[in-house]
Amino acid sequence: MVALKKMGLQTLVFAEPPYIASWASMVGPKEGEGPWAKDFDWIMEDYLFAEASWEKAESKMLRETVKLALSKMKLEPKDAELLLAGDLLNQIISSSFAAREVSIPFLGLYGACSTMAESLLIGSMLVDGGFFERVVTAASSHHYTAERQFRFPTEQGVQKVPSSQWTATAAGALVLQKAGVGPRVTYATVGKVIDMGQTDAANMGAAMAPAAADTIKTHFQDTGRVPDYYDLIVTGDLGAVGMALAGELFVKEGLVPSPNYSDCGVLLYDGLQGVDSGGSGCGCSGCMLAGPLLRKIKSGEINRLLFVATGALMSPTSSFQGESIPGIAHAVAIENI
Amino acid sequence: MVALKKMGLQTLVFAEPPYIASWASMVGPKEGEGPWAKDFDWIMEDYLFAEASWEKAESKMLRETVKLALSKMKLEPKDAELLLAGDLLNQIISSSFAAREVSIPFLGLYGACSTMAESLLIGSMLVDGGFFERVVTAASSHHYTAERQFRFPTEQGVQKVPSSQWTATAAGALVLQKAGVGPRVTYATVGKVIDMGQTDAANMGAAMAPAAADTIKTHFQDTGRVPDYYDLIVTGDLGAVGMALAGELFVKEGLVPSPNYSDCGVLLYDGLQGVDSGGSGCGCSGCMLAGPLLRKIKSGEINRLLFVATGALMSPTSSFQGESIPGIAHAVAIENI
Repeated sequence: MVALKKMGLQTLVFAEPPYIASWASMVGPKEGEGPWAKDFDWIMEDYLFAEASWEKAESKMLRETVKLALSKMKLEPKDAELLLAGDLLNQIISSSFAAREVSIPFLGLYGACSTMAESLLIGSMLVDGGFFERVVTAASSHHYTAERQFRFPTEQGVQKVPSSQWTATAAGALVLQKAGVGPRVTYATVGKVIDMGQTDAANMGAAMAPAAADTIKTHFQDTGRVPDYYDLIVTGDLGAVGMALAGELFVKEGLVPSPNYSDCGVLLYDGLQGVDSGGSGCGCSGCMLAGPLLRKIKSGEINRLLFVATGALMSPTSSFQGESIPGIAHAVAIENI
Repeated sequence: MVALKKMGLQTLVFAEPPYIASWASMVGPKEGEGPWAKDFDWIMEDYLFAEASWEKAESKMLRETVKLALSKMKLEPKDAELLLAGDLLNQIISSSFAAREVSIPFLGLYGACSTMAESLLIGSMLVDGGFFERVVTAASSHHYTAERQFRFPTEQGVQKVPSSQWTATAAGALVLQKAGVGPRVTYATVGKVIDMGQTDAANMGAAMAPAAADTIKTHFQDTGRVPDYYDLIVTGDLGAVGMALAGELFVKEGLVPSPNYSDCGVLLYDGLQGVDSGGSGCGCSGCMLAGPLLRKIKSGEINRLLFVATGALMSPTSSFQGESIPGIAHAVAIENI
């Protein structure tokens, strides 16, 4: 096997770019009110999804999204060789319990809201490396499980600030294959953990923006590509506040500001859902990729996408102990080639 | 690149088995009282490791173990291309904050106590696949961070039961390389999530034993190897209660009971440390592998090791909500070839 990557570079080049052969997305009621209702496979009527708890509902979302992505290819879970998945919950219970139900060999990931990109880039390496023929990558989040775990009891009705983001109730799943038709994963840049000392958990976009800028800059340095190469560069969930900051950092890093830059947290809602700075959560970039973005790639409206999911790696415990919020971002190039 | 694995099999065959070029381990005071004191690189004098909290101490352990494994090769963190790590804490803060300090491109994992095997098998695929020349894989746990998070305030002094296990204060790190000398990773079997309905969080060995039996059985089916092939088959942290149950399950699954079978949770202590059924935690199998086991492989005392780290994938929330405890086990074959 040929190492295509120069030692020390953070960007991987896929020799035989894996195909994204199928995908599926599922969202909650609020996300279904946004501009992309037609692009999601399933819009839940409520947050419990006929389960006894929000946590069980989130795990069911992830599980059903995985099954749906496979069923579009007339496949069942037993036809997948590996599931790579993660979520925001402690001990990633949404993913682990979903993996129990579908009974696919499972590798659990934690990259906070960067998980969709993390699972996609690991999956692409494992398929391109010849280790698996068919891998499912997935991520989920649920507004009320995240509120309960990271913030305040929902019954308390704590007031938000303008930089607050709304954890999306959403799941996305992709089927990666060595053979097939569809968009292909061509490059991936693995991010470093970047921490500029931000401590405000109500402004996670600002905590993640430096990581996004670092990974995007590295991607262009490593590949020799320029921002205009891509029809769309989309970060995961910086929200309006974080996206503005990322724009400033791009200039500071010497990157040409691109009119083709946007953010899934900004795109997911249309301003009428009361989500303050925008969406967040693993499912935010997960459902945007496995919904509107891949639909646009399939139709040729977008031919070259740089998908840069971003994660804030703190926990309530680390914040209580006075730690700042480390961010990470992984970039994945998805192209019609 | 050549796919060596038959579609549907859970076991990976490495075409050019990666080298475990270096390793390091660090343990807490209690683990240093056990039979392997000479095999660990560092025995901490207390549980705070000159930090302000147990959580910061655990992250420091992981970070220093990574640095130590690299320094044995006269390398620094900047010489590693990727860090694959995980731990038991919510949002894997031990690993994320360690990754921030060492500034190595980072992919976070969550496999509970199976993490050392998960990181090792993913790292081996990424090296064998030609994506990275040098990958560090690591895992940690800390008795007091785990007690605080999963169980009761330590000040409460809750009485243990005989099936209880003691979360090891320990970290292990391995440096994987395409080129080099040392033991090599030849095969790996990715586990499925197995849940037999066990709900007692004070008996996690019993919850994980069925997953261990399933993965080991699958490993032998897929590879055509027999238990006697290995000089040692070692599970991660089933403890004495779980190991006895695993032994019964091996017989039930038609596996020949091997006198070469043991468990890191049983091996780590020598009966004088008051750990009830034995050790647990990501660091339990992590320090045993990156300490005594790899020393024995290096000396030729063991030439063929099947390392089967096991994880219990519940969270306090899932247990409160009445869920049973899903288990997982990943097997990695490490051989002098």
